[in-house]
Amino acid sequence: MDKHIMKSANEAAERIIEWGEAHKIETCFERAEKLKPCPIGEKGACCKVCHMGPCRLVGKNAEEEARGVCGATLPTVAARNLVRMIAAGTAAHSDHARDMVLTLLAAATGEAKDFQITDVRKLYRVAGILGIEFEGRPVNDVAKDVALRFLEDYSRQKGEINYAKRAPKKTQERWRKWGIVPRNIDREIAEAMHRTSVGVDHDPDHLLLHGLKTAIADGWGGSMISTDITDILFGTPRPVKAEASFGIFKEDEVNLVVHGHEPSLAEMIVDVASEPEMIAYAKSKGAKGINLGGMCCTANEVLMRHGIPTAGGFTNQELGIMTGLVDALTVDVQCIMPAIAELSKKFHTKIITTSEKAKIPSAVHIEYDEHRAREIAREIVKLACDNYQNRKTEGSHITDKFPVVAGFSHEYIEYMQGGRWRASFRPLNDAIMAGRIRGVVGLAGCDNPRVPSTGIHKYLATELIKNDVLIVSTGCGSAACGTAGYLTPEMALEHAGPGLREVCEAIGIPPILHLGACVDNSRILTILSAMAEEGGLSDEIGGMPGVGIAPEWMSEKAIAIGCYFAASGVPVIFGGESPVGSSEEVTRIMTEVWYERFKGAMHFEPDPEKMLALALDYIDKAREALKLKKYEPGKFGAERVLMDMAARRELERAAKPHIGL
Amino acid sequence: MDKHIMKSANEAAERIIEWGEAHKIETCFERAEKLKPCPIGEKGACCKVCHMGPCRLVGKNAEEEARGVCGATLPTVAARNLVRMIAAGTAAHSDHARDMVLTLLAAATGEAKDFQITDVRKLYRVAGILGIEFEGRPVNDVAKDVALRFLEDYSRQKGEINYAKRAPKKTQERWRKWGIVPRNIDREIAEAMHRTSVGVDHDPDHLLLHGLKTAIADGWGGSMISTDITDILFGTPRPVKAEASFGIFKEDEVNLVVHGHEPSLAEMIVDVASEPEMIAYAKSKGAKGINLGGMCCTANEVLMRHGIPTAGGFTNQELGIMTGLVDALTVDVQCIMPAIAELSKKFHTKIITTSEKAKIPSAVHIEYDEHRAREIAREIVKLACDNYQNRKTEGSHITDKFPVVAGFSHEYIEYMQGGRWRASFRPLNDAIMAGRIRGVVGLAGCDNPRVPSTGIHKYLATELIKNDVLIVSTGCGSAACGTAGYLTPEMALEHAGPGLREVCEAIGIPPILHLGACVDNSRILTILSAMAEEGGLSDEIGGMPGVGIAPEWMSEKAIAIGCYFAASGVPVIFGGESPVGSSEEVTRIMTEVWYERFKGAMHFEPDPEKMLALALDYIDKAREALKLKKYEPGKFGAERVLMDMAARRELERAAKPHIGL
Repeated sequence: MDKHIMKSANEAAERIIEWGEAHKIETCFERAEKLKPCPIGEKGACCKVCHMGPCRLVGKNAEEEARGVCGATLPTVAARNLVRMIAAGTAAHSDHARDMVLTLLAAATGEAKDFQITDVRKLYRVAGILGIEFEGRPVNDVAKDVALRFLEDYSRQKGEINYAKRAPKKTQERWRKWGIVPRNIDREIAEAMHRTSVGVDHDPDHLLLHGLKTAIADGWGGSMISTDITDILFGTPRPVKAEASFGIFKEDEVNLVVHGHEPSLAEMIVDVASEPEMIAYAKSKGAKGINLGGMCCTANEVLMRHGIPTAGGFTNQELGIMTGLVDALTVDVQCIMPAIAELSKKFHTKIITTSEKAKIPSAVHIEYDEHRAREIAREIVKLACDNYQNRKTEGSHITDKFPVVAGFSHEYIEYMQGGRWRASFRPLNDAIMAGRIRGVVGLAGCDNPRVPSTGIHKYLATELIKNDVLIVSTGCGSAACGTAGYLTPEMALEHAGPGLREVCEAIGIPPILHLGACVDNSRILTILSAMAEEGGLSDEIGGMPGVGIAPEWMSEKAIAIGCYFAASGVPVIFGGESPVGSSEEVTRIMTEVWYERFKGAMHFEPDPEKMLALALDYIDKAREALKLKKYEPGKFGAERVLMDMAARRELERAAKPHIGL
Repeated sequence: MDKHIMKSANEAAERIIEWGEAHKIETCFERAEKLKPCPIGEKGACCKVCHMGPCRLVGKNAEEEARGVCGATLPTVAARNLVRMIAAGTAAHSDHARDMVLTLLAAATGEAKDFQITDVRKLYRVAGILGIEFEGRPVNDVAKDVALRFLEDYSRQKGEINYAKRAPKKTQERWRKWGIVPRNIDREIAEAMHRTSVGVDHDPDHLLLHGLKTAIADGWGGSMISTDITDILFGTPRPVKAEASFGIFKEDEVNLVVHGHEPSLAEMIVDVASEPEMIAYAKSKGAKGINLGGMCCTANEVLMRHGIPTAGGFTNQELGIMTGLVDALTVDVQCIMPAIAELSKKFHTKIITTSEKAKIPSAVHIEYDEHRAREIAREIVKLACDNYQNRKTEGSHITDKFPVVAGFSHEYIEYMQGGRWRASFRPLNDAIMAGRIRGVVGLAGCDNPRVPSTGIHKYLATELIKNDVLIVSTGCGSAACGTAGYLTPEMALEHAGPGLREVCEAIGIPPILHLGACVDNSRILTILSAMAEEGGLSDEIGGMPGVGIAPEWMSEKAIAIGCYFAASGVPVIFGGESPVGSSEEVTRIMTEVWYERFKGAMHFEPDPEKMLALALDYIDKAREALKLKKYEPGKFGAERVLMDMAARRELERAAKPHIGL
């Protein structure tokens, strides 16, 4: 393996990195190489919650003997560090969700006139879950009540978040037994910060329980709220074809990239970019048209709903600019490398910050305001068009791209298994029970320049489907698979094990289902709940033959996600160094103790092969405990599962990209 | 100076430390000596908000050239670190305040039957500020409305916190201009965590503005709410005599110490400890009675309202146990060294954790529940009595103690300057205008084993009053002064400059006014607002000849406090290493830029003499800008300011300790 292959496992990315090195342009890959992570902080052994420190709890027998100035032990310190990560991750998703709730409210009351309820069916479904009357009422009245009910998840001081009751009963019982049903998202975050401040909570198990409570406020609170409202406002995803990787940029069109996490402005940009006046404006600047592309989770949002192509995930953001073809790149919040502002100066690219919560020195700031969303979107599109003329010849000009199929919402997965009137999870549960599908893995989380980036995603994706494991993927995990060409149904024929292939062919799905952005990990929770309710597997989320893997995580959001899966009953495996690796006690609590209480766990395992083995082991043990047929590789393949023909036609119709062709 | 003198500037504390060393008992002082703070993290140059790091932004020209893996610059990293400290500090105070609001609500509705409204006058005053009708209504109805209104500060998504309007108009205008009026305490904390997570806000100034917004949510939100509700439930403090230092423990009585921050359970313990059955129970165990003592801010709460003696502040908690005389020590939240649990095993002391938010492995846990507060308080008192018999002869048995006068609420300071019907701040403003009092310093914050602990407090207290500067003190700053014998009116005669002495003698106050716990720094805000309204000085908080100093800070709460003072218009000086010392840009923003916008600033200055000089310089410059008479040392002293005789009688009456004599 030569030096370059070490940086990214994606060939196109690698060529751009090489081009950059030749042109003395530094990226996160070189910075990761140069900067050694602090070996103490990396493992959670550094405490900086007060100014008697920062204390470094190291040395022989640190677990038993090391003490901070206040007397805090290593398990206390490591647990506090993890709880703060959860608090930050939950804050990120839930602050995004708060904006979605406020946008829904403003749309319902007519204050945000550019937004409407797109998916009334989903609105009614959500209203039904919330116990809000919807039949015969004006849509906007229902939407307003839904928004106000969700706002209670940011305000009630006692009681439980709305969606706790969406979990299987037994899962809820476990939460109540251990006191971890959240009251209010912000309150749990604030309490997490309080409890981890100097001289408050010192019992690692007790701290971590509050960590789980805070994480549940993310998964079953902020993230799930965000997913549902985004569907209500912009449509529930259904399969759509699009493209991925750097080749999505066009030499002769204005390339405008939407990057970040919040979908509202991006949706509006998608909308205005096809307006005749905007296209005429682009042409007046010498371009043949306007080509939108996505980056990171905003990409996932507009890919799933509109077939907008994606340039990839987190580690692709600098590389995208280095193609020299990006005329403007808008960013809002989360996972925006500040490096892009400086980098863009070497090209012609305009970086536009749009959130009132996030600025980058030297970037153009055009602040988004939901009350004049369309106007702002037009301003941004025009700015991109204006900048087309400044495009230089410099850049790596990579042309690789792959087709992708994305957009597998909970609702669509249900629908594809029986059509509108017989929607269910029966076929999936049956396939798992029979051993055609060995189990399900959620392959999620970031991509990371500290490993051959996107490489562990690819390795695991390949191996898991070969082992008849169905993959549901989100976030930068999806981007990694998409830019590797792994998100097409054809993949099933080529790489999936025979049992899984059979099911995929019958239903007409890829073996890797792209479920959306990182907030859409909540879709996995509702899918698992539906599988539990469907019967035949576990009657709670815990005990299912399913595992979550975030092999290249880097964001605190990933930790919050991992913990809400663990609390919900899913064994989770993260890659890289463990951020609590310094403490055996904390590691034991997060694996053994959590497994005993919740049937979930949180492992950190840097070795990809061991990750795979651990995941398969969890799946097989769950199958055994559920007394399912023993999984036998190669057993299936000749038979054909019958597919509902109506569903297949619907799938084919839906799979036509909404725009771009 | 010998080795021991280096550890604590308090002689009694020093003797216990020595005793401990002789008996091989380790305290925070030895641990501070052994553990070198991480020099990178200490200055804010370490970034651990994602798992590509922790990145250490060091090296030559780090300010300009160092980058994290994501490209974050040193100013971004340092600013983020500070904002997270503010978020944690605000969370601590405001989570405490939330419990006070819920207790007030439960008292008002009769759910918490052991609590009543003690100070109806204060309730009405608060209701008046909140615009809640109170005349002719049942007290509990008003209290319920007040509680519900305060809960809005934890729930509204748009608008402004209730108490923003208590600030002088010009101060409010500055806040609005810069967009830093908080909407809701928890929301600002959550947004702070979001904005500081990977890839969100990268503009240091923009980040720090949100830091200020979050800090204001502490000072004018959580802390001020807590102060007011505590007054409503347990009485607004008025001067009371008590004692301080280790000598408060009694050899022949049950010594029960209340330590932590939340006053509700402590109030109930004070109440039940004088019940005949409890005293009889203590006697049945061989003790002559029950002796309550306080520690840290819980001490300040019960000292101010009941004259319960205090054993001192943060660094005294281990030393208190080492007297060998503490039969039980209850803790709730904040600034509890976990070390005390292990330490207590070497003595007979029972450590009792009482908060559902905070446990310490190996401590006894008796969980407080406001619905059966009295019952729980009795259980704790009995446990202390039971443990009296286990007292061993071991321990340092220190007997030093000093008289203190504490309990100077905003309301009392107003009252003492004119009696009930002519209450005002006129005399104080006049004294400052005339130059009798040069200015006012808030001397607050923690004590810290990294410096000769409590020593910088003592040094500054001595020098400031010598320079005719009136001191208002809170938290462990008060404890430092109290245990040094500095909290008596007699002090004025001995140490204060002639102008200040004259005023103190006339009104009958000490030159150092003990204002309460660390949440009671909010009293300083309302006092400054009243001074602005009174006229003759500045018409806003900014521009007053006043400075805040936290010379030995260690808690993140102190940072939140410093920042809300800075945002309110008070120049603030902190001791120790600057937690943003790695970045010149961040340092400049927090001093020059903030001063320009808000007339406040946040300095870090480890040298006590420079702290003093900087404070006096700010005061003199403010005097000059206000065109006040130039301060001349020694000018006053012969004249006598007339004191309102009724107020003097009232003061003398009130100054009798409520219990204990």
